[in-house]
This record gives sequence, C-alpha cells and structure tokens, in this order.
Amino acid sequence: MKKSLREIAELIGGEVVGNGSIEIEGVAGIEEAGKGEITFISDKKHLFLLETTQASAVIVSCEIKKARVPLIRVENPYFGFSQVTRILVPYQKPTEGIHPSAIISEGVDLGKGVSIGARSVIEEKAKIGDNTIIYPLVYLGKGSRIGRDCIIYPQVMIREGVEIGDRVIIHSGTVVGSDGFGYIPHEGKQYKVPQIGKVVIENDVEIGANVTIDRATLGKTWIKKGVKIDNLVQIAHNVVIGEDSIIVAQVGISGSTEIGKGVTLAGQAGLAGHIRIGDKAIVGAQAGVTKSVPPNTIVSGYPARPHTQAKRIEASILRLPELHKLVRELKKRLEELEKKR
Amino acid sequence: MKKSLREIAELIGGEVVGNGSIEIEGVAGIEEAGKGEITFISDKKHLFLLETTQASAVIVSCEIKKARVPLIRVENPYFGFSQVTRILVPYQKPTEGIHPSAIISEGVDLGKGVSIGARSVIEEKAKIGDNTIIYPLVYLGKGSRIGRDCIIYPQVMIREGVEIGDRVIIHSGTVVGSDGFGYIPHEGKQYKVPQIGKVVIENDVEIGANVTIDRATLGKTWIKKGVKIDNLVQIAHNVVIGEDSIIVAQVGISGSTEIGKGVTLAGQAGLAGHIRIGDKAIVGAQAGVTKSVPPNTIVSGYPARPHTQAKRIEASILRLPELHKLVRELKKRLEELEKKR
Amino acid sequence: MKKSLREIAELIGGEVVGNGSIEIEGVAGIEEAGKGEITFISDKKHLFLLETTQASAVIVSCEIKKARVPLIRVENPYFGFSQVTRILVPYQKPTEGIHPSAIISEGVDLGKGVSIGARSVIEEKAKIGDNTIIYPLVYLGKGSRIGRDCIIYPQVMIREGVEIGDRVIIHSGTVVGSDGFGYIPHEGKQYKVPQIGKVVIENDVEIGANVTIDRATLGKTWIKKGVKIDNLVQIAHNVVIGEDSIIVAQVGISGSTEIGKGVTLAGQAGLAGHIRIGDKAIVGAQAGVTKSVPPNTIVSGYPARPHTQAKRIEASILRLPELHKLVRELKKRLEELEKKR
Repeated sequence: MKKSLREIAELIGGEVVGNGSIEIEGVAGIEEAGKGEITFISDKKHLFLLETTQASAVIVSCEIKKARVPLIRVENPYFGFSQVTRILVPYQKPTEGIHPSAIISEGVDLGKGVSIGARSVIEEKAKIGDNTIIYPLVYLGKGSRIGRDCIIYPQVMIREGVEIGDRVIIHSGTVVGSDGFGYIPHEGKQYKVPQIGKVVIENDVEIGANVTIDRATLGKTWIKKGVKIDNLVQIAHNVVIGEDSIIVAQVGISGSTEIGKGVTLAGQAGLAGHIRIGDKAIVGAQAGVTKSVPPNTIVSGYPARPHTQAKRIEASILRLPELHKLVRELKKRLEELEKKR
Repeated sequence: MKKSLREIAELIGGEVVGNGSIEIEGVAGIEEAGKGEITFISDKKHLFLLETTQASAVIVSCEIKKARVPLIRVENPYFGFSQVTRILVPYQKPTEGIHPSAIISEGVDLGKGVSIGARSVIEEKAKIGDNTIIYPLVYLGKGSRIGRDCIIYPQVMIREGVEIGDRVIIHSGTVVGSDGFGYIPHEGKQYKVPQIGKVVIENDVEIGANVTIDRATLGKTWIKKGVKIDNLVQIAHNVVIGEDSIIVAQVGISGSTEIGKGVTLAGQAGLAGHIRIGDKAIVGAQAGVTKSVPPNTIVSGYPARPHTQAKRIEASILRLPELHKLVRELKKRLEELEKKR
Repeated sequence: MKKSLREIAELIGGEVVGNGSIEIEGVAGIEEAGKGEITFISDKKHLFLLETTQASAVIVSCEIKKARVPLIRVENPYFGFSQVTRILVPYQKPTEGIHPSAIISEGVDLGKGVSIGARSVIEEKAKIGDNTIIYPLVYLGKGSRIGRDCIIYPQVMIREGVEIGDRVIIHSGTVVGSDGFGYIPHEGKQYKVPQIGKVVIENDVEIGANVTIDRATLGKTWIKKGVKIDNLVQIAHNVVIGEDSIIVAQVGISGSTEIGKGVTLAGQAGLAGHIRIGDKAIVGAQAGVTKSVPPNTIVSGYPARPHTQAKRIEASILRLPELHKLVRELKKRLEELEKKR
C-alpha cells in the first residue's frame, strides 16, 4: 500500500515537518530503511542517525523540530510507527469461507464472514463468532465457543468446554483445555482426579506458541481481559490471571494460583500453587515464587524476595570471599592479643 | 446422571448420615455447590463451611459424626469425591469407529472398539489395542504400537518404533520418539549421531500436553508403569523413569539419566545427564541437579543440595548483610584494643 | 543391511584386527550387543568390557592393538561407530511423491523427488527444494521456502515469510514464524506491535521438537549455518544465532539478543534481551544471563558470572554457616579481652 506522508501523519495524528507529498510504501528500522520507507526514533541516543538514515521519512517525538529528512512529529514515536506499520502492511486475511476439506460437525454455529482453513476439525455444537479466522489443522472441541474477530493459527488445539472471547489471538501449537495434573495417592497407587472444569479466556487476550493451559478440576481456569502470554508458558488448572497482565516466555504457574491485574511475570519465572500475586507486582526472570506477593511489589531471586533485599543479599554474596579473608585475619590478630596478655 | 445419596455412598463404600434418598446430579467445590450437587471437605480447617454450604450433601472424613446437611462419611473424602465425580460426570467417549477421513495405511492392526478421529494418520504396520481412542489430527508412525484402553488426544505425534502399554493417556501437542540430541565434533564440524533406539511407555502412564520424549540413541528411552508427567516436560534420549514417579511441569531430564521409583521432580527442575536419582527421592522446584541423589533424599537449590543443608545455607545468606556489619564492628573494636596496648 | 567387517572398516577408514570376513548386520551398545552386531568403546575405563562383550566386533581407538574379539581401529571410535550405524541402519525415507490427501495450493514450486505426507497443507507460492521430505500434518505458510534435502517431521508449523536452507531437519511440534511478543503501552492499554519481519534458517541447522522461533518485528530472526537446537527452546523475535552454536533443551533467548559462533547454551539457561554472547562462550545450565558475555568465556549461576568466580562464591557460601559460628566465637573472645582491660 502507498500513502503520502501527509496522509500518514493524519492517520496517526502527527504533524509533518518537510515535504508532505512524498510517497511512502514501506516501513523498516532506522539503519535498514531506504527510499520509499518510513522509520522512527524513540530513544534520544539514536537521534544522531537522523544525519545518515536513508529513509524517506522518520517519525520522531515532538521535541524534535527539524531535520535533513521529512519528519512526522508525534507524542510516542514507537506507537505511531506501529500504527503506520499496520496501515502500510495490513494483516493478510486468508480467503474467507470454509475450506472444503475442513470438517464441520453437526450443530456447529458459524457467524458471518468466518474463515476455516484446510483440514481443521470443528466438533459438534462448537460456536465461532463473526469474522473469526481459523487457520488449517486446528482442532476445536465439542461445544467450545470462540468469539468474533479472533485469529486461531495453524495446529492450535482447543478441547471441549472452552470459552473464548472476542479479538483473541492464539498462536500455533498451543493447547487449551488439557486435563489438569491431579492425582490422589490411595493405597500406594496414584488415582487420576477427573478434570471436569473449563477454561475461560476473555476479550483481547493474546497467547503465544506451544503454550499449555489446563482446564480446571472444578470451576474454571480463567484468563481475564487483555492478558498477553508469550511462548511455552505453563498455566495449570484453576489458575486465574487478572486483566492486562503480561506473562513472558517459559513461565510456569502452578495450580490454583491467582495473578492480579497488570502483573508482569518475567521469563522462566516459576510460581508455586495456591498463592496470590498482587496487582501490578513484578516477578523477575527465573524467580522462584513460593509465597504470595503483595501488590506493587518487585520480587526476584530463588527463592523470590523483595527486589531491594535480593540486591542487598546479592551484593553481600559478591563480597563473601573477601569477608572470609577478613575474618581469618581478625582471628589471627585476636590470638596475638590473647597471647600477649 | 442422577443417583440417590444412598446409591452414591454404596458405590464409594461410605456411610450416609441424614436423608439418603435425596437425588444428586452434579459435583462442585464447597463454596460453589448448590442444590442437587455434592461436595467434600478434606481439610479440618474448612469444616466451618458445613454451616453455610448450599450443597445438597457433603463427603467428609469418618471423624465427623453429624451436620446440618446430609453427609457421606469415608476414610479419604477427596478420593471419595473424585470417585463420585467420575460416576456423575462420566468421560464422554467420542463416537466409536474409524472416521472416514482418517488415513489407515497398509498392514495396520486395529483392536475391537477402537475410535480413530478425523484426519488422523496411522502409518503402515502400526497396532492399536482394543477400545483405545485416537482423537483427530494424531500421527502414529510406522510399526508403532499402542495398547488397549488408551486415550490419545488431538495433535499428538508418535513416531516410528514407539511401544505404548495399556490405559496410557497422552495429551495434545506431545511428541514421542523425536530424535535424541546427539552430535560428534569431528574436524571442526558437528556430525549428527543417528538415533535408532526406541521409546517404551508402560501401562498406566499419563503424559501432559506439549511434552517431548526423545527416542534412544541405541536401546530405549523408558517410562515405566504408572509414571505421571505434567506439561512441557523434556525427556532426553535413553532416560529411564521408574515406576509411579511424578514429573511436574517444565522439568528437563538430560540424556541417560535414570530416575528411580516413586520419585517426585517438582516444577522446572533440571537434571544433568548420566546421573541417578534414587527411589522415593524428592527434587525441589527449579532445583539444578548435577550429581546423583541417594534414595529417600530431598534435594533443592541451585546447585541442588540436601534440603536441610540448603535451608541452613539459605538462612545464613539471609543474615549475611548483618554478618558483614558485625565483622566491621569487631574489626573496629579489635583495633581499639590493639591501639591501647 | 549386512556387510563384512572388512567392508565396514574400509567405509569408515579403519583397520581390521582379527577375522575381517565375519558378517555384521546391526549395531548396539557394548553391554547389549550380541552375535552379528558391532559396538564401540571410546572411554578407556570401559576397555575391560572387551573381555566379556558378546558383540561380534568392536570399534576401538588406535591405541588398542589386539583383543579376544575382532576389532576395527580408528582415531575416533564414537564417530566411527556413528558412521557404521548410518550404513547398517539407513534412514528410512517415506514413499516419494505427493500423498493424494496433501493440499498443494496454487503457485507452489516443488523440486524433484519431493515427498509430501498425508494431510499436509502447503499454502500458495511456497517453494520446496529437491529431495526434501515433508511428513504428514505439516503446515507450510504462504510464500515460505524450504531448501533441498530437508526433513520436516509431522506437525511442524512454518508460517508465511520463512526461509529455510538445505539439509535442515525440523522435529515435530516446532513452530517457526509465530509473532514476536511485542506490545506498546499507550493510555493504559497494551497495543500489539505488528510483527512483519521474517525468519531465516540457514543450511545444516537441526531444530528439536516443540521449539518456538518467533518472526522478527522488522528484519529477521536469524539461525545461521550448522546451529543445533534441542527441544522446547524459545527463540524470540530478532534473535541472531551464530554458526555452529549448540542450544540445549528449554533454553530461552529474549528479543534481539545475538549469540556468536560456536557458543554453547546449556539446558534451561535464560538470556535477557538486547545482549551479545561472544564467540565460543559457554553458558552453564539454568544460568540467568543479564549482561553481554565476552568471547571464550564460561559463565554460570544466577545471575550468571564468570565460572571461576561463580565457583569461588559457591565455595564461600558452603562455608557460610561455619563463618557465622566463627564470628560469634571471635566476638565472645573479644568481649573477654575488653572486659579484662
């Protein structure tokens, strides 16, 4: 798609500096961008690149008044660039309609403008909302519901009894609704606890690739509005994740743990079961969280502790070899004194 | 399904207190259960909820003699409840038979009552035992064997040369029999070591979603009877896991390591290759195990150490900043003494 | 396949000691091998097994001159054995050609001798090179390219805009080209950053099972020549991995991080974003790497530090309880001295 710089500026609510009639047809990073492409600078320390960039235009923050290249000035250049990207490189919807090789079982309820890809299997009584896109080789279990304007990438597996809201994106290889991991030891054997609960995923959630979200034992595993989940994350049965929380790759959340709103769990963090992470808390990468965390708290380390304490302990540990040495020396001097007495 | 409280009590070997003729048709947690539903209390500290629950009946331990609601008294209430769940909410078998879109190659040997779902691909000479259920979009490799009464969920991948016992459950996205990770450096390049061994999975094993189990280089990767494996676990080539062991989510077990019987590996633990974990040992969450662990031992930490030692060291670390301070103070006082001399 | 010991020795460039005319038809480990099988010893401490092995022949290093069984002497016995394995147990190619149930969309460009398995879906304008094998239930996105002599196992998902070189192997459940994890906070909401970059995988790369490789935001996520990636690894958007590096299972690499040539990342290690790991560096298992690592350096621990420092700190920590005790004792003795004064 081609647009003039002026048109782009209008669409993203920015102000043009320089020639607004030049045509832009692509986006790229500041060092790769060439003729016909627009780029951005969001960090002041990259401003010097304005002198050398080959881009036809640059999106910058309002503090920048002028440059040798045409500019669009906006409040948040990265956000503006991101909007431009979506305009110039629109998401390529697959062909609308039901591929003849898709299997649509009895009683399936399809909205308007739904796409279902080749070889996908939609089980009985499943429901898919308007304009939702199901890529090839997807499985949607009996009676499960997906809202409108969702994108379900190839090879996603959604089992029976799963409820998914609107504008949800699920990436490939992700499994939603597998059995929770629950056994009862009885007379020396492990018996499986039936997992008859469901999974509820609310509006505007995005889930990465090869994620696992187990169904609840009873009740529901619950991913609330606006949650973003990265790849290879484990979400056990009956976990609740509050609105707009961010779960980075390879995090593991054990059964029945409750995550508040606006929480960030950094990569590879592990959370014990039956604990609560307060609103807006931040859990550091690889942290091992064994107890509940109050709201607005940063924890890190293994086991996880308040971040400032973790840093202080960290520093003491670094000085440990030196401490050992000092104590040995003090001991010698003390013995010296004791002898002289 | 509906049953009277008396019928239920008989089926699970419990004793009714109160009106045994009331009808029960569902199960729920103590705080969610309503009319027509049965629930349970296994922890004494929740007994006060007997006063307020809306459930029609509660399964309790034999110590409880009477309550305002009808009871079933059993030895292990959670186990009893779990049995009731399976009775009232039976597993919904998919339609028996081979879906016309499944691909059954030459020489495949199918038992009685086998279900094979849409779009599944069963390669030559594979064998599937009586009453086993293969969901849609499953791949079963050449000559592989699955026993009877197994459940293989959608999108499971089982490569050639895999042997699976009876009553095995494998959840979606799991890969069994991928090549082990083995290379030989030779004249500055990495050469792939052919992985020609197999995978053997014994009876009553359950494997979670998106697990990876590599085939052996030579011989077999071996998951013994009754082992339970959670989601996103990595099991490398030639690993052996002893009977009834429990492997929690995101654990990684390196090549040729041997896990004893009744072992528990908690979430995100990592085990080095070529070590042995003794029977009934417990490895803590996120532990990094670099050496063999004797039987009946609890280890934790990074690197993993006997749990009591790890706890003692943990406590010393917490008091480190204070120790630094104390040593500084002692030093000053010592200098004081030295000067006075 | 059957071969005489002499033929085998010639094929791997070794020297026979003993009867070269015996026939060999299989391979096995030293303790399992029986009649008709060849095995190997690469570690001197296993040489005593030459006395008891039931194998018909053993591959050994040149230092060994003679034994009670026929030998093949080579420089690197494990490498030699690995070559013999490939000769006696050749990779079983699936039937050549396009399975009638595969879906080949318009404008797909297929090389000579390509195999495409049942139910695979190849989208428009994708390109597959000569002799490449695509197993069943694979998804290959629009316009993506795979080189020659590749093996793509069942249920691999390759999205649009992915470029794969020659002799690449990708194991089941792996997802290549899913969206990078990027959001911009704007007026209290998270907005998705469009991920319009690609993934480039060069020649001779092998990728394990259930791996996730995200596409770049802009530009490319780039896996260079000869890289070997184990199972369940997370590779975020815009990561670059240098030639011949080894990435062990469950490692996570955050966005825009650059890994040099010949690097080893051991199991479950986690790397922060926007850092650089120098050529031939080694990152220990479970290490948490928060800063760039210079070339030829070994780091370990959490947070990762140079290995010798990590070891020294580790040792000081082990002696901590004893240090606490010693300091308490010194304090008492000091007080004694102070009193006497």
